[in-house]
Amino acid sequence: MALYPESIERLIHALTTLPGVGRKTAERYVFHLLRQPPAVVEKIVQGLHGVQQDIHDCERCFNITVNTICDVCRDSQRDISTICVVSDSTNLHAIEQTGDYHGVYHVLGGVINQLDGIGPNQLRITELVERVHNDGAQEIIIATNPNVGGNATAMYVIEALKDMNVQVTRLAQGLPAGADIQYADDITLSNALKDRKDI
Amino acid sequence: MALYPESIERLIHALTTLPGVGRKTAERYVFHLLRQPPAVVEKIVQGLHGVQQDIHDCERCFNITVNTICDVCRDSQRDISTICVVSDSTNLHAIEQTGDYHGVYHVLGGVINQLDGIGPNQLRITELVERVHNDGAQEIIIATNPNVGGNATAMYVIEALKDMNVQVTRLAQGLPAGADIQYADDITLSNALKDRKDI
Repeated sequence: MALYPESIERLIHALTTLPGVGRKTAERYVFHLLRQPPAVVEKIVQGLHGVQQDIHDCERCFNITVNTICDVCRDSQRDISTICVVSDSTNLHAIEQTGDYHGVYHVLGGVINQLDGIGPNQLRITELVERVHNDGAQEIIIATNPNVGGNATAMYVIEALKDMNVQVTRLAQGLPAGADIQYADDITLSNALKDRKDI
Repeated sequence: MALYPESIERLIHALTTLPGVGRKTAERYVFHLLRQPPAVVEKIVQGLHGVQQDIHDCERCFNITVNTICDVCRDSQRDISTICVVSDSTNLHAIEQTGDYHGVYHVLGGVINQLDGIGPNQLRITELVERVHNDGAQEIIIATNPNVGGNATAMYVIEALKDMNVQVTRLAQGLPAGADIQYADDITLSNALKDRKDI
């Protein structure tokens, strides 16, 4: 029994395609939008319009860009001998925000996930190997998430690079800043102990 | 340092106007949408377009509708001597879904909330009093949420109706279906005890 008017039902249905958005959340969004000035809704419409046409992958590192080559790759100040391998552009963005990384990136386009049918061939690992080969990179920093999918992907990338003359590193694992050891999970604490460093 | 292309930043910003959506969630939505077929994005755009123009309040009960009078008010089978007072159309919808209510509704348009500057005058309480007076309702069921705002609003509605010749009731409070008494909060359990019923 759909009680809402058809135009609301249609919008609710369309919004449930967003990740993590079920019917209740979609309803909440719609009823919020109904109470907003038309300009607020118009901004979202304008934002959605054209976002897909504008955006594509950088030809070199597969970061999102509106040009053929992304801002990072075009920056002549970056050290192209260091390539940081990330699963997607959001993680690249997070690393850029630190301001502490001056090398370039390689965006894999996801992580290995059997359930979603994403295997190593769906990721841009061959392109990474080619790039390392052609550009003479000296260090590959693997920056996939420290979880099941990220670890499996890291293993696969390490395997693909193992016969190449390049140093392969991975982001450190340990206690996050501001953590309370009492509440740290076992794996994090084990990693922090195992990788403890001299001071 | 905004690293994302301008069109993505604009969409992220527009989406953060949704309730409960911060920058990270908005980013997640945008990157999800970038990977979808254009038809998926187009459905959301189509849904947003016109949803505000189509929809307005029922002249009688203030439920959302595309007509002047909503489906519930137009249904001649409904018992107009019983009016269920709800804060908004989503709660009306939830009650309709039970299939157990055959009266009509009155949508207040929110609850009293000092922080958001919503006082009794912003709610349709005067309209309710007028309706009760004109239509000769016999029972008013107050169905605002059993929380701070809902309770304050209920008190105000009860006060507004107290000199009228009408029975005023409120939804029962007690244990929800499937609850475990061990984990029920004190207030719920107190209410369940206080309002225990003969069997």
